Amino acid sequence: MRRQRRAGRAPNSPRQRPWRAVERGVAPIAFASDDEIEAIHRASLRVLAETGLEVLSARARTLFAAAGAEVDAAAERVRLAPELVERTIRTAPETFTLHARNPARNVPIGGPAIAFCSAATPAFASDLDRGRRPGGVADFENAVRLCQSLDSMHFFYGYPVEPQDLPVETRHLDAYRSHIRLSDKVWRAYALSEDRVTDALEMARIARGVDRRTFAAEPSLLLNCNTNSPLKLDGPMADGLIRMAEAGQPVVVSAFTMAGAMAPATMAGALVEQNAECLAGMVLSQLAKPGAPVIYGSFTSNVDMRSGAVALGTPEFAKAAMVSGQLARRYRVPNKSSNVTSSNAVDAQAAYEAATALWGSALGGAHIVAHGVGWLEAGLTFSFEKAVVDAEMLQILAETLTPLDISDLDAAVDAIARVGPGGHFFADPHTLERYETAFYEPLLSDWRPYETWVEDGARTATERAHRIWTRLLAEYEEPALPPDRAEALDAYVADRKQAYADA
Amino acid sequence: MRRQRRAGRAPNSPRQRPWRAVERGVAPIAFASDDEIEAIHRASLRVLAETGLEVLSARARTLFAAAGAEVDAAAERVRLAPELVERTIRTAPETFTLHARNPARNVPIGGPAIAFCSAATPAFASDLDRGRRPGGVADFENAVRLCQSLDSMHFFYGYPVEPQDLPVETRHLDAYRSHIRLSDKVWRAYALSEDRVTDALEMARIARGVDRRTFAAEPSLLLNCNTNSPLKLDGPMADGLIRMAEAGQPVVVSAFTMAGAMAPATMAGALVEQNAECLAGMVLSQLAKPGAPVIYGSFTSNVDMRSGAVALGTPEFAKAAMVSGQLARRYRVPNKSSNVTSSNAVDAQAAYEAATALWGSALGGAHIVAHGVGWLEAGLTFSFEKAVVDAEMLQILAETLTPLDISDLDAAVDAIARVGPGGHFFADPHTLERYETAFYEPLLSDWRPYETWVEDGARTATERAHRIWTRLLAEYEEPALPPDRAEALDAYVADRKQAYADA
Repeated sequence: MRRQRRAGRAPNSPRQRPWRAVERGVAPIAFASDDEIEAIHRASLRVLAETGLEVLSARARTLFAAAGAEVDAAAERVRLAPELVERTIRTAPETFTLHARNPARNVPIGGPAIAFCSAATPAFASDLDRGRRPGGVADFENAVRLCQSLDSMHFFYGYPVEPQDLPVETRHLDAYRSHIRLSDKVWRAYALSEDRVTDALEMARIARGVDRRTFAAEPSLLLNCNTNSPLKLDGPMADGLIRMAEAGQPVVVSAFTMAGAMAPATMAGALVEQNAECLAGMVLSQLAKPGAPVIYGSFTSNVDMRSGAVALGTPEFAKAAMVSGQLARRYRVPNKSSNVTSSNAVDAQAAYEAATALWGSALGGAHIVAHGVGWLEAGLTFSFEKAVVDAEMLQILAETLTPLDISDLDAAVDAIARVGPGGHFFADPHTLERYETAFYEPLLSDWRPYETWVEDGARTATERAHRIWTRLLAEYEEPALPPDRAEALDAYVADRKQAYADA
Repeated sequence: MRRQRRAGRAPNSPRQRPWRAVERGVAPIAFASDDEIEAIHRASLRVLAETGLEVLSARARTLFAAAGAEVDAAAERVRLAPELVERTIRTAPETFTLHARNPARNVPIGGPAIAFCSAATPAFASDLDRGRRPGGVADFENAVRLCQSLDSMHFFYGYPVEPQDLPVETRHLDAYRSHIRLSDKVWRAYALSEDRVTDALEMARIARGVDRRTFAAEPSLLLNCNTNSPLKLDGPMADGLIRMAEAGQPVVVSAFTMAGAMAPATMAGALVEQNAECLAGMVLSQLAKPGAPVIYGSFTSNVDMRSGAVALGTPEFAKAAMVSGQLARRYRVPNKSSNVTSSNAVDAQAAYEAATALWGSALGGAHIVAHGVGWLEAGLTFSFEKAVVDAEMLQILAETLTPLDISDLDAAVDAIARVGPGGHFFADPHTLERYETAFYEPLLSDWRPYETWVEDGARTATERAHRIWTRLLAEYEEPALPPDRAEALDAYVADRKQAYADA
């Protein structure tokens, strides 16, 4: 039996499952009881009311004060009463759509939808040919091209690798332009400064070719607002959050609560701290603009108490992801989790840690899985081979979450009757009608017998992944961008570079 | 911070989570709807009533006929009316305990319990030093020792590798004796012939040092009864099942329903066939002895329609595992699933396929996970390195399934107040009271920074696994067996060897 080639693909081109919005076809796991979720919620409210947050943005403190929060301007401390928190976050939307410059790449966020993203902001790039090196613009652009080619990746959670050789002042202009030119998927703004967030907003609007009113009504760009755990909100992060909310663009509020270091040394304690920080960010977002899309971001794990190393893809991470999903559902906002590993190599550890994070996130109810492809070494490195391993794992997960189809039960019973005891189904009409599309076809997995596999070079999954990404890059085609948008984009970048140079 | 050594372990001895009965602290996933489960159930009953099974055991056909089944003796065909099936299986127990020769190794089966087992019956052994070779008694005994040493493995699902160099006629006597001497965990009988099943029963009884009455009341041995899919029950399998049931010992009835080959080319169709075969075996067990422990075994996946290769650890496998868990719960019997991979190497593929199978099985509600450690190449090979990778994955899974502990919420809120915004928790009393046992400690995972890892040899997980299993074997100590039992065992084996020689 031979499978038909997919149109437009070279005969040996890597087979992927086609781009699609993924839905979780099964109810998310209730890992903690409702009472336990409420207890974590109430403990977080106590933290916000009694200890409060250090907020380093004057604009943010003004918004908090105007809403009735207790603000100590000298100490830059903000305390939030439970009632204020509960009331304010109610306006956050439960679902929305992220609009790409190519509408075929739009991504639903929230509800049953689950979106997989690129790695964000590793400092290094790595592959089997060249090893590990500091990230530069060439690796950044190739990583963007590869992520564009991987159909299981829905949008960019940031630079897949940091283009460290671009000047810091204007790096965002070049990198955002590359995102727009090399990919038609949604990308993400960085909270570097208010000006730079405005650059991202303008460039995203130009890329989409829409007016300001349409852009404000259609989320098209994402920003990740990291709290500085414990309980600190930096100025650029807070200002970026406010600017995005005002522009109607979604913000992920994400704590980095490593139990035992920046958070208490228990999962429950770390989740209380995460929840307090996320709630504070969600409140700020809704104070800036009621109804602005805001996402509950979770990144709670622990440090290894012997070495201080960050432990990721562990039982603690999976549990925290599941509980975070429950907390986000309690607040009726989408949840962001991550695909993580602390492994230094693209090996079995990288895969089982990623699997632990992915299953915990997906079954826990995450709507956005950040760092979905390419993340290695606790995020220090973008690995081209890991990106392909991840893409396979995301495909497998997406397919596993698709409900069982029982529409052929009667036909199957008839087939079983035809074949009878001891027979086989290879030539049965029930099989022949279905075999081309019946089952999952892998991108990376090699199911051949041992001897065949040895004769063909005995390549490990990581070695095969190398062949796949090089092939995908060789076959990559830049997605068309209308010339007027490309020109407007270039003009904007040139103009802004001049402005940064003059400043 | 330094962790205390565990008593009795050398300083560099691999750290494992201690042996314990694992419980799923979260409700199993309802992947299909109740209506869909009923539809699969009814379709299976149609298969049993209309097509029926070929049953190659005269004793089994007699039992079926006596219960009112329609038996065509010439065609060796048995058809079962729905009412007969539903009525007969009701006596099967929902839970029981597997008794080991060391009571500390007893394993609860069913309910919230989940037990992890060894690989069963690979033909080859493999490790990084010596590569792949046909399984022999030396590898078999080392694999038994390693499985004994791995605390996450609860019992043997069979020979971890086939000792092919032992004479076929009496192989079971030597292999069972090695199981008993080298390990104090439960082992499994093979349905080779009725005599040999009797040998297993006697040897297990001798090992436990109990009389026949106690042995009959305490499940102490397991047998796997594979149907010959589609719809065929071989003589030795049926006779072995009957013999075990009569002795009060548990049998797993397991179909090998590869969709597109031995089963219809859809998951729903293959599950109908699996369910029909499992139901028939469960009926036979209860006809042989009402109340005999019987386990619903699932092993449904698909063949790759392009190559005919068996595809394992796939979305199809995970879905089938989850639905099988639901079917078993409908029948109120324990469920057996498996930890599987089609990979030829201990690489990322082996890990993500195993993870897919493990999460699908564990969250789907499996009570026994066969092939838990060491399985490679779709079961053709026992890999010593894979066994260690698996042990780590089982530890992670077991820990992930343990409920969140929220008992310290108030203490955590107080710690957060003490540390305050921008501080750290390293030296807080809340941390110092907990750091030694707060978090999961890995057996295999390496979380050190990249540079440290490179300086120490840049070993992959598979290379580290090699060091761990060689260390575990070097530190292995044979578990004490009372001399009278050892003597009785030797006498039994000598006596039976003579009998086989005389036959």
